[in-house]
Amino acid sequence: MPRYRLEIEFDGSGFVGWQRQLNGPSIQSTLEDAVFAMLGERITAIAAGRTDAGVHALAMTAHIDLTRNLAPARLQSGLNHFLKPDHIAVLLVRVAPPDFHARFSATARRYRYQILNRAAPPALANNQVWHVAQALDAEAMHQAAQCLQGKHDFTSFRASECQAKSPIKTLTHIEVSRHEDQIDIVLQAPSFLHHQVRNIAGTLKLVGAGARDTGFVKQALEACQRSAAGPTAPAHGLYFVEALYPDPIDETD
Amino acid sequence: MPRYRLEIEFDGSGFVGWQRQLNGPSIQSTLEDAVFAMLGERITAIAAGRTDAGVHALAMTAHIDLTRNLAPARLQSGLNHFLKPDHIAVLLVRVAPPDFHARFSATARRYRYQILNRAAPPALANNQVWHVAQALDAEAMHQAAQCLQGKHDFTSFRASECQAKSPIKTLTHIEVSRHEDQIDIVLQAPSFLHHQVRNIAGTLKLVGAGARDTGFVKQALEACQRSAAGPTAPAHGLYFVEALYPDPIDETD
Repeated sequence: MPRYRLEIEFDGSGFVGWQRQLNGPSIQSTLEDAVFAMLGERITAIAAGRTDAGVHALAMTAHIDLTRNLAPARLQSGLNHFLKPDHIAVLLVRVAPPDFHARFSATARRYRYQILNRAAPPALANNQVWHVAQALDAEAMHQAAQCLQGKHDFTSFRASECQAKSPIKTLTHIEVSRHEDQIDIVLQAPSFLHHQVRNIAGTLKLVGAGARDTGFVKQALEACQRSAAGPTAPAHGLYFVEALYPDPIDETD
Repeated sequence: MPRYRLEIEFDGSGFVGWQRQLNGPSIQSTLEDAVFAMLGERITAIAAGRTDAGVHALAMTAHIDLTRNLAPARLQSGLNHFLKPDHIAVLLVRVAPPDFHARFSATARRYRYQILNRAAPPALANNQVWHVAQALDAEAMHQAAQCLQGKHDFTSFRASECQAKSPIKTLTHIEVSRHEDQIDIVLQAPSFLHHQVRNIAGTLKLVGAGARDTGFVKQALEACQRSAAGPTAPAHGLYFVEALYPDPIDETD
């Protein structure tokens, strides 16, 4: 029963999120359907992170088990053939050790939140950025965000429907930078709470716009209640960048 | 009769090109309809370049004449309100001198041709890059392209339906560079022939893939016949970057 590790890029716009749900197509079900269309096997795909509806991925790691051995390049091209109309692309396939688990083996996740900060709405990056017309001070956002680094109770940035046992998480890295009209918020942590990145982005936007001062983020964090922080930024600005694993996998193609 | 200069970003995917045509919506007609919807005035919009169907623009310059004076910011936000569903965005509006002409005042045009060079098709930049799965040597493409700089008879890179009086053009600049999976071909000239950039891109791709050696571009140029060069690269990889004008316009907002 060979296990394959996949790196997947997707545009989350038309999906209910990663996880299979009854109310619409998910990335997971679309990928599983592509495996069935190609090989006639009904499998379950496991991912490093369960993204929300509308959230994109640059390189989501997933694993699948198949009953037969296939050359990774053949599996990749076959899946891409069936996935192309769905705006899902398999960037890389590798044979993984039997104990590799896309979710439980991951030691860290990286996310990027993208804001298009200009008067005009996006024509080319439609549904792929959060458009904020009001001028934002990215440097102020970066300074305000630094208090979030480290181990904290992130209750103020946690969705009410979050299923994590504890609100305590360790944010390893947070950085806000401007590249012309675009502001990127990059975050890394072993794991995140539900809506944590979007709630942080919505809070930092208030600081960037001058609606709150830079101390607001620290006050929100310490209040340990959701209402103390800013609103949830829209899903379509959020990208799952990559998951990190302890051991590099050999290319066994 | 105030004249306004507009910088416009658009996704060309759903359009027949810049110019008004009978067989579908054009950027020009959609912009003119937005002016009518906002102000009730039937105007003609003139652009720096007439892009083909499927070609995008990062900052196309256009001018329009209105019967009344409007604050540029108000004109911009009003037009963007009506244009938003069409994936056209007005990035900037300025009052222009009466003799400013988006097409005839322009001294140079810049284009970029974008190739996504990886096995997997694009999931996020769908219809916004030319996907080439075969590995391309961007450095070889750059070297091969340099013979095109300067004043030449570009008959070999000219569409049969091209309406220019002469095939002689001066290519000021051409540069091929790789950024991870993306290869950019950047070109600048006072003006271009019909399909000139796409025919150059299609020819350079043959060199990058090793199907032709680096001398092929020079041979194709010197042959002065279309069949001597490579095929026309698809429209959806092409971006009109910007038009250049001799005098900067004051911000009179």
